[in-house]
Amino acid sequence: MQIETPYLLFLGDVGDQLAAKTAHGIVDWRPEWCIGQLRLEGCKADCNIADMTPAEAAAKGVRTMIVGVVNAGGVLPEHWITEIVAAMDAGMDVATGLHRRLRDVPEIADASERNGCKLHDVRFSDQIFQTGKGDKRSGMRLLTVGTDCSVGKKYTSLALEKEMRRRGMNADFCATGQTGVFISGRGVSIDAVVADFISGAAEWLSPDNDPDHWDVIEGQGSLFHPSFAGVTLGLLHGSQPDAFVVCHEPTRTNMRGVKHSLPSIADVIERVNLEASLTNPDAQCIGLAVNTVALDDAAASACLEEIGTQHGLPCVDPIRTGCGPIIDELQRRFPG
Amino acid sequence: MQIETPYLLFLGDVGDQLAAKTAHGIVDWRPEWCIGQLRLEGCKADCNIADMTPAEAAAKGVRTMIVGVVNAGGVLPEHWITEIVAAMDAGMDVATGLHRRLRDVPEIADASERNGCKLHDVRFSDQIFQTGKGDKRSGMRLLTVGTDCSVGKKYTSLALEKEMRRRGMNADFCATGQTGVFISGRGVSIDAVVADFISGAAEWLSPDNDPDHWDVIEGQGSLFHPSFAGVTLGLLHGSQPDAFVVCHEPTRTNMRGVKHSLPSIADVIERVNLEASLTNPDAQCIGLAVNTVALDDAAASACLEEIGTQHGLPCVDPIRTGCGPIIDELQRRFPG
Repeated sequence: MQIETPYLLFLGDVGDQLAAKTAHGIVDWRPEWCIGQLRLEGCKADCNIADMTPAEAAAKGVRTMIVGVVNAGGVLPEHWITEIVAAMDAGMDVATGLHRRLRDVPEIADASERNGCKLHDVRFSDQIFQTGKGDKRSGMRLLTVGTDCSVGKKYTSLALEKEMRRRGMNADFCATGQTGVFISGRGVSIDAVVADFISGAAEWLSPDNDPDHWDVIEGQGSLFHPSFAGVTLGLLHGSQPDAFVVCHEPTRTNMRGVKHSLPSIADVIERVNLEASLTNPDAQCIGLAVNTVALDDAAASACLEEIGTQHGLPCVDPIRTGCGPIIDELQRRFPG
Repeated sequence: MQIETPYLLFLGDVGDQLAAKTAHGIVDWRPEWCIGQLRLEGCKADCNIADMTPAEAAAKGVRTMIVGVVNAGGVLPEHWITEIVAAMDAGMDVATGLHRRLRDVPEIADASERNGCKLHDVRFSDQIFQTGKGDKRSGMRLLTVGTDCSVGKKYTSLALEKEMRRRGMNADFCATGQTGVFISGRGVSIDAVVADFISGAAEWLSPDNDPDHWDVIEGQGSLFHPSFAGVTLGLLHGSQPDAFVVCHEPTRTNMRGVKHSLPSIADVIERVNLEASLTNPDAQCIGLAVNTVALDDAAASACLEEIGTQHGLPCVDPIRTGCGPIIDELQRRFPG
């Protein structure tokens, strides 16, 4: 899946900023791709970029309108369909992460065919993958893993890529979830792939590359999450990471959506090392990324200090402290 | 997915017995459901049951025609479509494991609608599952696991169910692959489920049941297979087995389809115990099922003896020796 940039962000008429979380993520990480936003009457979300119509956006060179909002129930309201058709009539592709496939809406399918525009339903995967082979590929790979779902793996991966690029390293973020796909313009929603092809999709995502090139792969789920561990394991095997970073949210007590308690960071490091060895026996934990948003400055600082000391690893909050110490460690361990 | 029985087995005009492996599996395990077979001119496969037309089968009470053959490339030849339509015109449902969906063939879709007959594409899953919850369910569960793919997990599961039923135990085979679904009339092709729902589908497959009831769940893949370990792990977590049986093929050196060498049986027991503990800390290995088809009688006997002694567990070949010793062990450990 390759989404053409730059983007017009469609915010619809959603009732709050949270419903536009995906659009905000794109603006945060790829401001240079976000030419404008399209808001309908009553919209309570705002990405603080120029408002424009589909025709105005197309005139400014926009290639794709991103439906970067979720609405209640994931349905596609009739008046959104009008705007999606208008975007294609203006010559743009359209990409969404909605639960309904765009092509299942006859007016949208017609507009796509009439204008030769692409429809990207990033929540669905129509890509044909091979099953994973487990062969070693050239180039280097870093994978973020977690004690749980939704602990900051995507944010950490993007922050790591940013710091690596700042230092002139050859690094690319590899998206495995829908927001990540919009942010990078490519990738795969790994949780939407048919089960037999999880590791194969991960292998497709980070193919052979230059010896000094790093793929920074967005992790999913947790090996200790009873809903999603299969996805996590297939992604780990296909990614065959040389390095991994454990992401953690220190105030969480239960795994998201289930009754299980959180594993310790040490448990995660040990299990990832054990399972990673099937496709890369040399996988190493190079750092910890702790989401301290729930803590005040003093508590956050103490928390990072304590966890880092406990594990003998660089421990950062990508938002509060940046990822410098982890990339220092990466460069120390992989001087190549 | 619930397939109505009894069956008419469609063998088409395939060129050898191997192409009708699925049909043979159904006859082996559910002869009472196999009323007849439908063979076209030139068919080289034969299940040694009565030949009959769709109309004759319907008159004998057949409810579903099973397309129990694979042809080169998985395509559906035109002259097979004629027979599938004839089956529905005679009032039967049709089930296949082909790579192409029956409903994508207009004549078949029309015949289904016209006659109110169901189409079961067991290689695809349209069932809506929930994500796995990891909560303990009532009733008992046995899962077969393997050192590799295609080492006899389905056959072992069916042989275990048969022996348990022979002893009057309350046991049901739970199919997780397409042949198994035909054999049991229900189940899910777990490798065709969307990745996010692997463990949820396994939970759906073996719901709460009576305290003395055993679900005997067909395993898939191997935790040590780089292509499929994610499926295996999700199935393990969703199955939350009380007991597991390790299946093994002693002459195999490499994992099927990849360059990785086989794990040892001891490795598999250890890893399954470790990973199973997330949803059932009391999972126990109760026996080993070794596929000795490649060995002569003396070598097979020595092999079973050696492997059993080495691990201190009952070790059988379900075909050569039956599963008695494993069920003895099961009844000893779970006297409930």
